[in-house]
Amino acid sequence: MNILLTSAGRRTYMVEYFKTALNGSGKVFASNSVLTHTLLQADEYVLTPNIYDDQYISFLVEYCKQKSINAIISLFDIDLPVLSKNRSVFEKENIKLVVSNYEATLICNDKWETYNFLKGIGINQTPSFITIAEAKAALSNGEISYPIYLKPRWGMGSIGIYKAENDAELDVLYKKLHREIFDTYLKYESAADAEKSVIIQQAIKGQEYGIEILNDLDCKYVTTFAKKKIAMRSGETDIAETVDIKEFEDIAKNISVHLKHMALLDVDCFKNNDGKIFVLEMNCRFGGQYPFTHVAGVDVPQQIINWLNGKDTNWDLLHIQTGVSACKEILPTIINKKLNI
Amino acid sequence: MNILLTSAGRRTYMVEYFKTALNGSGKVFASNSVLTHTLLQADEYVLTPNIYDDQYISFLVEYCKQKSINAIISLFDIDLPVLSKNRSVFEKENIKLVVSNYEATLICNDKWETYNFLKGIGINQTPSFITIAEAKAALSNGEISYPIYLKPRWGMGSIGIYKAENDAELDVLYKKLHREIFDTYLKYESAADAEKSVIIQQAIKGQEYGIEILNDLDCKYVTTFAKKKIAMRSGETDIAETVDIKEFEDIAKNISVHLKHMALLDVDCFKNNDGKIFVLEMNCRFGGQYPFTHVAGVDVPQQIINWLNGKDTNWDLLHIQTGVSACKEILPTIINKKLNI
Repeated sequence: MNILLTSAGRRTYMVEYFKTALNGSGKVFASNSVLTHTLLQADEYVLTPNIYDDQYISFLVEYCKQKSINAIISLFDIDLPVLSKNRSVFEKENIKLVVSNYEATLICNDKWETYNFLKGIGINQTPSFITIAEAKAALSNGEISYPIYLKPRWGMGSIGIYKAENDAELDVLYKKLHREIFDTYLKYESAADAEKSVIIQQAIKGQEYGIEILNDLDCKYVTTFAKKKIAMRSGETDIAETVDIKEFEDIAKNISVHLKHMALLDVDCFKNNDGKIFVLEMNCRFGGQYPFTHVAGVDVPQQIINWLNGKDTNWDLLHIQTGVSACKEILPTIINKKLNI
Repeated sequence: MNILLTSAGRRTYMVEYFKTALNGSGKVFASNSVLTHTLLQADEYVLTPNIYDDQYISFLVEYCKQKSINAIISLFDIDLPVLSKNRSVFEKENIKLVVSNYEATLICNDKWETYNFLKGIGINQTPSFITIAEAKAALSNGEISYPIYLKPRWGMGSIGIYKAENDAELDVLYKKLHREIFDTYLKYESAADAEKSVIIQQAIKGQEYGIEILNDLDCKYVTTFAKKKIAMRSGETDIAETVDIKEFEDIAKNISVHLKHMALLDVDCFKNNDGKIFVLEMNCRFGGQYPFTHVAGVDVPQQIINWLNGKDTNWDLLHIQTGVSACKEILPTIINKKLNI
């Protein structure tokens, strides 16, 4: 069993988890469009064309055939719909895509579609608007109040998120964010609906949680892992504690059965001061939360490999210990030494 | 030789570097006002009162006496002037403060004083203003142009930095930042000059560099380490490459002789497209750049311990290999497991 992690970026720990899971019974390959230290930790790596390049898919297929790669797992949002759309191309070569259905990847990458999807299945949503006129109407009729957040509709992490506290800030920051979106790589996604590329959301006061909803390779619900977020850094969970899933389980099953994602779904939640749970964002891949689950005794990479090998769900791999606090430590690491002649 | 690292925060690598340097010949103690994983990596640790608490200094002195600690090194900006102001209290107990003179700590913690200090010794400065009226005058007479940055005068890292691209953004973001400063812990420093708590700076186009200027314990210039910054994360250097110090050396010596800091000074520079070097910020402590120097063959912790032991400068410890690229890898780490009864 050989595995390819595409868009591996800087998630070295994912390469390590998969290497440990394969335990020499197969290789972990990693790909990315630029060289990173993470790639060097894989058994083998390859630099790919840009995700949007016409040659991206055929390049990956050729590489998989050449290296006898059995399955692909992607670690980057933008990569997911591109792979998913081409599922049949991979399947023809007996390469399993451990990537969600195309529709699910589009919903997760689009905060406005995420809002509509979750609202549609009855999950608490903070009031959200896709035009500034609607947001202003909601402000003036008292439906929402400051502070409100402005976010790139197709954004990732904490890039380009602004908090507006009054009308002047709303006007100026809305224009600013709209301009910034079209100055950055977000313009590719945002071109789909340029006038509606900023989502405006009522801020929620409360405690942030992260849950991961695990479906099997037939996209059926398996289990959920929950964490209380204690500190964030650049939009990623930096310190967290594993907690009981009880109050998140119904929400998780509801999302699972409607989204029909494959493997892990990384979900951001808020519990407000009344104990009401809101779901804010979803990423249908291993996310920044997963290490907190892994160090608490879970091994999703091993379970995915077992499934790929036709084995059943092994609950020993999916039992999370609650009350485990963890952080992301910084480890200074040499990438490259130039020869000094 | 026992060393105490105060305000150790999450710089685990600094604890490790000092433990390696002492190599069992003494202990590394770490202190902080809240528990972190870093503290647990020290030989012993202690939770202190808040830095601004009346009991902070007497608490540290008592702890040092009790644990036979010979020297204190602080890793946090806010801590530096508080310690420095009380140098005589520590010295009376034969505890060496490896902390710069009080004046230097105040200059480094205050971006407006940094600007005035550096301008005063003839180092290139980007045009900077401490009132919005002066910034607007400079904009209208063409002395500066958008984009311009607004930063908390007493801020740290990338917290609260806004980029303004036009008059409307300047007005709104200036008011916003001023309000935010007084909503956060920055209010303590900013209370010193509330009306002048935001610094407005012309943005510089170019390449960012980091240099570290090493003075000995008599505050005399020793050497400089230089790095090209390749990626930033939350205001800290995340990927960097060591480079030749030649074009930074005169600037470094100039700063060293005038600031008279002790041990390391962490300095942010920009080289614009004409090759002109600007100095933006200074921190008189080990900063986020140091790991990039350390992995390139330098050992400042060992040199500081040697100096504390009365030994001479050992140039073998201070030779930096250029062309070494490094990154800060993420290492998921358990902090604490609650008992689940």
